[in-house]
Formats: sequence, structure tokens, C-alpha cells
Amino acid sequence: MINPEVQQTSRVGVLAVVGVGLIGGSFAAALRKAGAVDRVLGVGRTPGPLAQARRLGLIDEVATLAQAAEQADLIFLATPVGTFPALLEGLLPSLKPATVITDGGSTKADVVQAAYGVLGSRAGQFIPGHPIAGAERTGPEAADATLYHGRNVVLTPLPENDPHQRQWLTRVWEQCGARVLTMAAQDHDTALASVSHVPHFLSSVFMAQVAASADADVRLRLAGTGFRDFTRIAAGSPEMWRDIFLANREAVLSELAQVRTVLAQAEQALEHNDGQQLFDLLERAALARRFWGSRSGLS
Amino acid sequence: MINPEVQQTSRVGVLAVVGVGLIGGSFAAALRKAGAVDRVLGVGRTPGPLAQARRLGLIDEVATLAQAAEQADLIFLATPVGTFPALLEGLLPSLKPATVITDGGSTKADVVQAAYGVLGSRAGQFIPGHPIAGAERTGPEAADATLYHGRNVVLTPLPENDPHQRQWLTRVWEQCGARVLTMAAQDHDTALASVSHVPHFLSSVFMAQVAASADADVRLRLAGTGFRDFTRIAAGSPEMWRDIFLANREAVLSELAQVRTVLAQAEQALEHNDGQQLFDLLERAALARRFWGSRSGLS
Repeated sequence: MINPEVQQTSRVGVLAVVGVGLIGGSFAAALRKAGAVDRVLGVGRTPGPLAQARRLGLIDEVATLAQAAEQADLIFLATPVGTFPALLEGLLPSLKPATVITDGGSTKADVVQAAYGVLGSRAGQFIPGHPIAGAERTGPEAADATLYHGRNVVLTPLPENDPHQRQWLTRVWEQCGARVLTMAAQDHDTALASVSHVPHFLSSVFMAQVAASADADVRLRLAGTGFRDFTRIAAGSPEMWRDIFLANREAVLSELAQVRTVLAQAEQALEHNDGQQLFDLLERAALARRFWGSRSGLS
Repeated sequence: MINPEVQQTSRVGVLAVVGVGLIGGSFAAALRKAGAVDRVLGVGRTPGPLAQARRLGLIDEVATLAQAAEQADLIFLATPVGTFPALLEGLLPSLKPATVITDGGSTKADVVQAAYGVLGSRAGQFIPGHPIAGAERTGPEAADATLYHGRNVVLTPLPENDPHQRQWLTRVWEQCGARVLTMAAQDHDTALASVSHVPHFLSSVFMAQVAASADADVRLRLAGTGFRDFTRIAAGSPEMWRDIFLANREAVLSELAQVRTVLAQAEQALEHNDGQQLFDLLERAALARRFWGSRSGLS
């Protein structure tokens, strides 16, 4: 028995996706697949990806920011967070009062700041979000209607947000198969600095160090599956990750300092041939990782 | 047209596998599948895995070190490298003069030292090797006849090795689907410190740091696929990896120092909001990783 009112309230009439790559394209694809959206507008800087998104059926038509602001019930910003202030400025003049704007940005405190800074008294129309999903692949051809299945989406609502709109957005994400969590923007950023930004930072630093070594060729010939997994994230977009690090600079630096402390302890144990201390650290890490693996649904 | 002489010279009559886990069990399984072995003996410390290996058809019978030394044409040591001196001592008294011993250890300089130290004038019967393959899974049930398909196996031969036996061992590995490379033990250890041991060290340090944080639960709930890949190796055996780090201590410490230098530069760039320097590092890493991915056959 379906409650038609509830069903209706998780529908999106017109969706506008700004940035039709993996994150935006997958959101559109998931809502289309769920039959939860009537029409999808695609907004972007360059015609190539937009044309491709249309060929792939991710969007119905290409629109400008002003057209999206006039027509859309939900606007999803799925471009690097550094672009948000300019996007919001482009949306504001034509923005319908009932339209909800949300985003897929990996940092939230800076996005909240951009929302207040640009939207001012209409900041309540912006509900910041972050779907914890992604892949090395990018562009419309990487879009996947199942990308958000079983994944967490964090909302970091503003006090000005309408509670009904917040609930509606939660149900929209749930239609994509996601689990929705709510937390403060700063808590999100601290947690993400730890489990997403720092791993990327370390993986990239490591990869750059190996590539710069005199015998990089020999090394890389001997690299196996452990290397493959550890460095996979280092292949990600330099532009996007530079923006993420700068946007979440303090939390990332603070976590890196913590990691360096543990690293120094471990190096000292190795330097002193302290097998027991090394074993204890490796065992703590292995148990924590295995426990996480058994719980996360990702391993 | 198959040359019967060549075909015959890549056959193993009796194979003894010491340690019937992933590495040893997969070697036996691969040679069985290739029809390249007549009989497989399994040697181990504990009866459980041996019984399982027999049930799985990886080995024909359980044997002692002395029995293996008396009967085997090829003895494959597939236990942690720290156990090799004791194993070689157990093998030496009964070792047939024509028997070849090889191993699957992740470090080679210490294994070479153990071979000379224990086998003395018969060290030439030991051809050190390292198949660059593995997985988080362990034990006989993880054994897989295709584990070595397309993977590199490094041999670090001793001057005392018989060239024909070296060629024979090369062909035996090729029957497992592997590519065989030859290099000096020290060069192997330096390269592996860089592309295998240091990633494991960093992954474990990072995982231990996250697990020790006050809000570990929240962090780990928000961990996604990047975290999963970056920390996968941290789930590996603490015992085995402690031994590897201790065995290759100097090379690992030297590489870690190099990584710390690049890390300090990257942190400084972030601290100074130097987007260009950050971008340059991220781009170098991304290009190197993508190039490796396209070449390695592992991505």
C-alpha cells in the first residue's frame, strides 16, 4: 500500500544538474531510473560533456544558469566547490522562491559560507550535502544509476532551511538508494579530512616520490596489487583535489600532523628493531581495518 | 610442434611446498593445472592447514622436512622469511644433491644470507625468488591456480647456482603463467621497499591513527571507496609484515625518509595556500599513476 502523498513528496518535477559528470550524471540517472523526476536540465561550462549527457539520456536539454533557476524544483551543484560562489551568483537573480539548491561537494564549511555570502537572506534555499561516493572515472560516460546504492549521503543543513524541504531532499536521496545522515558542517569536514582527504594527500605524495626516483622504471615494474590499491586515488583530478585541500586546509593539516606523530613512532620502532611495538601497531591497524571491512559493505 | 626435451625440462617430478597457504598452495595448484608436476608434498607447522590443503587437492601427502629433502626435486619455501634459517637447517642433512630449493619471500638480501649461512658449500642449490602476487586472503582455501597469471616473479640468483637449474626454475614459473625477471638481491629489496613495504607501512600507520581518534566511529561511517582502497593492505598479516619490515629495515627507513621530504613540501604548500605547487604535485602523481595503470595490466 503506497501512500500517494508520501510518494508524491519524494518526486522532483524539474531537476537541474550543474556539472553533468560522474556525480551529477549519476544523480540524474538514479532519479530517472526510480521514475522520480519529470525533466532534467543540464548546465555546464563546455558543450562537449553536455552533448554527451544528452546522447546518454542523462539530461533532457541543455540550459543556462538563469533558465535552471527559473524552471527547476531542485538544483544540484556537481562541480568543484571552488566554482560554487559564481554559480550561486548566476542562479540568484532568477531563483524561484520554492526551489531547493543542494550540492555534492566534498567539503561543507566553505560551501555554507558561500551560500550565506552569495544568497544572503535566501540562504535557506540551499541545503548543503555530500554523497560519499565516487570513482576514478569521470565525465558523463562514467555516470551510473546505481552509484549511490547503499552509500552514505551527509546533509549539513542550515538553521534557515525549511524542515519539509529537508525531509523532501532526504527522500529524494533515498530514491537513489542512499542512506542519509545529518551532521554539522564542521564535523563533516573534520571526519572527511581524516578518512578521505588525508588518504588522498598521502597517496599522491607517495606516488610523486616513487615517480621522481632515479630508478622509477624498475620500481614500477615490480609494483603489484598492494601498490595498485594504495595509489588508485592518486589518479584523481588534480584540480578537484587541490580545491578540496585548500577548502579544508586546517582540518587536513591538523590530521596530517596526527598521522606524522604515529609515523614517527612507527619509524622509531623500526629503527630500534622493536618487533613488538611494530607488531602491536600493525595488529591494531589490521583489526580495525578488518572490522571496518566487515561493517562497511564496501569491501 | 612441441620440443619434447624442452617440455620435459620444465617438468617437476616431486614438488615439496613448505607452507601451504596462498603463495605455496597457489604454486602447487598452478603446476598441477599445467600438468607440470607428478606429486606434491606439503610441509607445515600445524596439521589444520595441511589437512585442508590435502582435502582441496593442493598436495598429495603431508611430509616432514627430512622427507621433503629426501624426495623432492623442487622445494618451495612459502612461509615468513624469518622461518627460513630453521627450515634450511631441517632440510640440509637429507638434501639430495640435485634438488633445487627456492622461495616466495618478499625480501631477498636476508634470504641470500640465510642460504649461505645455513647451506654453506651447498648454497648453490638455493635459487632465491619472489613472486609479486598476493592478496589479503590467506590460507589454503585462498590458493588459486591463476594467482601468478601475468605476474612478475623476480629471481635473485647466486653466483653458485647452476645455470641449467636457473633456466629450469624460470620455465617452471612460466608454466604458472608468470613473467620471470632477474636482478641483484639488493636492487630487488630497494625497489620492493619503495613500491610494497612503504605503502604497507603508511597504510597501517594511517589506519592506526584513524582507529585511535576519539570520534573514530563517525569517521569510519563516512569512509568511502578511496579509504577502502588506500587501507586494504593494512588488513594484512601483522606477523608477516613485521618480519618484512625488520628484514628490509634500512631500505624501508631510507624510502620513508624520502617520502617524508615530499610530504613536508606538500604540507608547506598547503599551509601557504600555494595552489599552484599543490596542483603540480597532484598532477605529477596523477599522470604517473594513470601511466602505470595503463601499462601494468593490474588496473
